[in-house]
Amino acid sequence: MAKFVTIGERIHCISPAIREAMNTKNPEPILKRAKEQLDAGATYLDVNIGPAENNGPELMQWAVKLIQENFDNVPLALDTANRSAIEAGIQVYNRSKGKPIVNSADAGDRIENIDLAAANDAIAIALCSREGVPGSVEERQGFCMELLERGLTLGMDSDDLWFDPLFLVIKGMQDKQKEVLETIRWFAEQGFKSTGGLSNVSNGMPKHIRPIMDSVMVSMAIQAGLTSAIVNPCDLRLMEAVKSADIINNETLYADSYLEI
Amino acid sequence: MAKFVTIGERIHCISPAIREAMNTKNPEPILKRAKEQLDAGATYLDVNIGPAENNGPELMQWAVKLIQENFDNVPLALDTANRSAIEAGIQVYNRSKGKPIVNSADAGDRIENIDLAAANDAIAIALCSREGVPGSVEERQGFCMELLERGLTLGMDSDDLWFDPLFLVIKGMQDKQKEVLETIRWFAEQGFKSTGGLSNVSNGMPKHIRPIMDSVMVSMAIQAGLTSAIVNPCDLRLMEAVKSADIINNETLYADSYLEI
Repeated sequence: MAKFVTIGERIHCISPAIREAMNTKNPEPILKRAKEQLDAGATYLDVNIGPAENNGPELMQWAVKLIQENFDNVPLALDTANRSAIEAGIQVYNRSKGKPIVNSADAGDRIENIDLAAANDAIAIALCSREGVPGSVEERQGFCMELLERGLTLGMDSDDLWFDPLFLVIKGMQDKQKEVLETIRWFAEQGFKSTGGLSNVSNGMPKHIRPIMDSVMVSMAIQAGLTSAIVNPCDLRLMEAVKSADIINNETLYADSYLEI
Repeated sequence: MAKFVTIGERIHCISPAIREAMNTKNPEPILKRAKEQLDAGATYLDVNIGPAENNGPELMQWAVKLIQENFDNVPLALDTANRSAIEAGIQVYNRSKGKPIVNSADAGDRIENIDLAAANDAIAIALCSREGVPGSVEERQGFCMELLERGLTLGMDSDDLWFDPLFLVIKGMQDKQKEVLETIRWFAEQGFKSTGGLSNVSNGMPKHIRPIMDSVMVSMAIQAGLTSAIVNPCDLRLMEAVKSADIINNETLYADSYLEI
């Protein structure tokens, strides 16, 4: 076990301010969001540049250098469907604070992102699905083993595969939540690391409910064995839950000031 | 599985207002606390009259009748070291909303409270300790099996034994928290029901931290398989966690208003 790893999700081209900043190569909005997330306790930052079909490699290199040079080589997850952009980002990536994360491979069209991670000594987020939502815990296990086998065959360490159970929206798939948690427990039993887009669970819920639901889900998922999540670290309640779970799991020594650290 | 059962802990003679009310047979403070806890969503109410060496049976009967008559026969946990007071309370107890709970038996001096529960068709909280703090998961399992065997031999249904892993204070026993959660998971794997004094974990922490820590602990314990807890239901954050965990476990159907229900 180790402290829970949070991957900050807020540098994402779906945000108009970030998209504009990426289009115009304006550092300020990106640096602002990076700082907010690091101040809130994020370990990794995700950098999502979207499909980036035209200028992916150049844009990713710019973003990686910008963020790492300004924030003491903070480790990053490189997030785009454009594989050459991920490779280009890794070329300029500084590993002093942690390997780059390739976000993400799956057991379908994106399985070659395992190869990419293996060839570049990177961590791969390995989504245990092929097309759409997996039908059962067993189906996720099957995808997990495919992804694992591919990575191991290519010389990866199993610790560099962070398996993603595919968190699902409660509004619409409430009866599938226990399967997700069971899958996480199974990952933990195998000794596998795991991560995922946890805030999916509260999609579509009223704004005041989302931090409540997300903080309970992250607590339950950590108890099931989740080792990381892609989250909004600026959600105070969620980060309080993560820090408290680390205390309960004896990964951080308790002090009355633990929430401020 | 079923919805998580909260047992409200606030009718307790350790509170000066409640002790005074019990001494003078003043209904108002007791009814006020009962109402507050029921409004906040408690299922059971614990009635702790202390050692009550002089007037235990009469006091418990008064309290049981008072609370049940005013709150539609709300189910109660009868909580005292005075065994004859528990028996007296059960004599006047109305079972229409649930069996009475005997709080509590252990694997030491209080093991005869199992016999008491068996003789009175009651639920027993079965604390998996003998003297002091159990040293390991295995020791708790041993005490659990002793308590179970005693209950089954006397004709109890295993569902009427609610095993208590003994929640421990984090400040001082931080490294024991995972054992408690492992014990709960083992209870769940056996199909056993469970409960316990969950707010022990945050004893001695700053007041603003306790609801945060308790809500994370209850979320993690529910994920481990805990089926009930003795808590302060007026702790809003804790109850939000319990209700959200019931949603995630698909025990309550999600509605945007679920926190108000």
